[in-house]
Amino acid sequence: MWLIDQTRLPGELVPIQISSIIQLVEAIKTLRVRGAPALGVAGAYGIALAAELSRAHNPFDLISELEVAAEMIKSSRPTAVNLSWGVDRALQAAVRLETVEGIREAALREAEEIAEEDIRINKAIGKNGAKLLEDGDSVLTHCNAGRLACVAWGTALGVVRSAVEAGKEIHVYACETRPLNQGSRLTAWELAQDGIPVTLICESMSGSLMRKGRIDKAIVGADRITKDVVFNKIGTYNHAVLAKYHKVPFYVAVPLSTFDLRHEEADILIEERDPDEICTISGTRLAPHGIDVYNPAFDATPLQLVTGLITEKGVFRPPLMPRI
Amino acid sequence: MWLIDQTRLPGELVPIQISSIIQLVEAIKTLRVRGAPALGVAGAYGIALAAELSRAHNPFDLISELEVAAEMIKSSRPTAVNLSWGVDRALQAAVRLETVEGIREAALREAEEIAEEDIRINKAIGKNGAKLLEDGDSVLTHCNAGRLACVAWGTALGVVRSAVEAGKEIHVYACETRPLNQGSRLTAWELAQDGIPVTLICESMSGSLMRKGRIDKAIVGADRITKDVVFNKIGTYNHAVLAKYHKVPFYVAVPLSTFDLRHEEADILIEERDPDEICTISGTRLAPHGIDVYNPAFDATPLQLVTGLITEKGVFRPPLMPRI
Repeated sequence: MWLIDQTRLPGELVPIQISSIIQLVEAIKTLRVRGAPALGVAGAYGIALAAELSRAHNPFDLISELEVAAEMIKSSRPTAVNLSWGVDRALQAAVRLETVEGIREAALREAEEIAEEDIRINKAIGKNGAKLLEDGDSVLTHCNAGRLACVAWGTALGVVRSAVEAGKEIHVYACETRPLNQGSRLTAWELAQDGIPVTLICESMSGSLMRKGRIDKAIVGADRITKDVVFNKIGTYNHAVLAKYHKVPFYVAVPLSTFDLRHEEADILIEERDPDEICTISGTRLAPHGIDVYNPAFDATPLQLVTGLITEKGVFRPPLMPRI
Repeated sequence: MWLIDQTRLPGELVPIQISSIIQLVEAIKTLRVRGAPALGVAGAYGIALAAELSRAHNPFDLISELEVAAEMIKSSRPTAVNLSWGVDRALQAAVRLETVEGIREAALREAEEIAEEDIRINKAIGKNGAKLLEDGDSVLTHCNAGRLACVAWGTALGVVRSAVEAGKEIHVYACETRPLNQGSRLTAWELAQDGIPVTLICESMSGSLMRKGRIDKAIVGADRITKDVVFNKIGTYNHAVLAKYHKVPFYVAVPLSTFDLRHEEADILIEERDPDEICTISGTRLAPHGIDVYNPAFDATPLQLVTGLITEKGVFRPPLMPRI
């Protein structure tokens, strides 16, 4: 199983080989692999890998090992629903089989199917979303919901790519996205590679740009959508409130696999990450030692602030929601 | 003339000696010295320094040199009004005298007077603002409007210090303040030194903290207040809109010298700074090369979003403004 190490971008494009579940969990926790759809695929391949590596001689032992592997992988990032979804899909495909070899093949086939599906779904999201963009639009985005967050194309950036493919001129304002700078490292890099005009900003600039009328639409991805809120990268909620205040349409581009309509906000744990992510960059100390730091990875944006949810099955305007 | 090099904090507390106007301009442009009140004092001492260094033999030549020095210093940061104010005050004090020695002494005396005044004014701002804070309040602040931005005590942080001195328990959420991290490097450091509880956050977290009811008040400083807006560090406007949306009182703590009520927003140039401030940290590249970057140093917050302007002459609730 090969991944692009997203922590090394934009400096180096380095593929890493994942050969154990521990290595996969490390790669997920450290965000070498990140982005809801990419995590779904990585989770499914993780089950296929666990099946491949297992020395179990009978299907009962193998499934029991896969269930443990599934828990290990799923708990590595609790907020992102696609990770659990990918793991569970591969696991459910596997348990239907009755031989060790059959289980291995089924898990791998399901992982491959999820990866191929993801590209088709991204293209459909892009097509549905592109209609919402007009020629000449400037689009604000936060974090990275692009090719790197998926298998190819992207969700939020997929919408931009599809609009550009349809001949529209689109300009993207990419927020650097503190503390881990996925916007500057990944989104700006992806768009520059594709020749799509992009301007890098700090997220603190979104409001003043909206006030000047320089942002026509905002589009972000999501890590989980419950009955009431969109969980996405910390900072999304600020942009959503600012968009509402300035009457800028605020869209969330997601596959249906990101919906978790059995739960509501209060049920979901927001992962808090290492204070050092804010206090240091590449070994340079930005803050005094021993200071208290609050570093949630995500925030929750009430659906009332969302103009539309762009999915592979069309655009849903809350309170209208897709049937899952 | 000695300054603390604010770019070296929190790693090192390094005083630097300023012995020429070029060196002073460099120190202002690179933010070794920063913060509206501190710039006012530095500007005035700059005129005293120029007078000291001059080889002019008669008052006409000396004043003519001081006028050139004044323009050089004032243009180093065009948005911050206190810099011009401090320079002009020292210059006006100097031109009244008729001998070279008299001019030198008058400029230095005026600079010293401004520095002493600044401490008294900060204490008065603190006293007036402290009444607005309740025991147990959590206060959001952005950038650094503390001791380092002034001569001592501070404006926004001066209000916190005065409330703490009056026996109230106050907790501060300090935004790191991208791209130059004055919040993590300076505000967190200052408060930790004083033993005032501080939690470092990214500015993208302000909205979700307000939504959770964890912020009672927001207090920031300002670089210039015109008839219609408050110019302050980029990101201030985002917090002000979010505070309005969540009904969190939003205060600006400033000396009267920051008011420029003859002008309005459209008259004032917002300084745009080097893209590398966003693209690199201590030599580490955070974004691809050659990318477009927008890096304004300030934004403008309409006075309608401001609950109160805390000054040395009391708290003014817009549209009520102090008489200057």
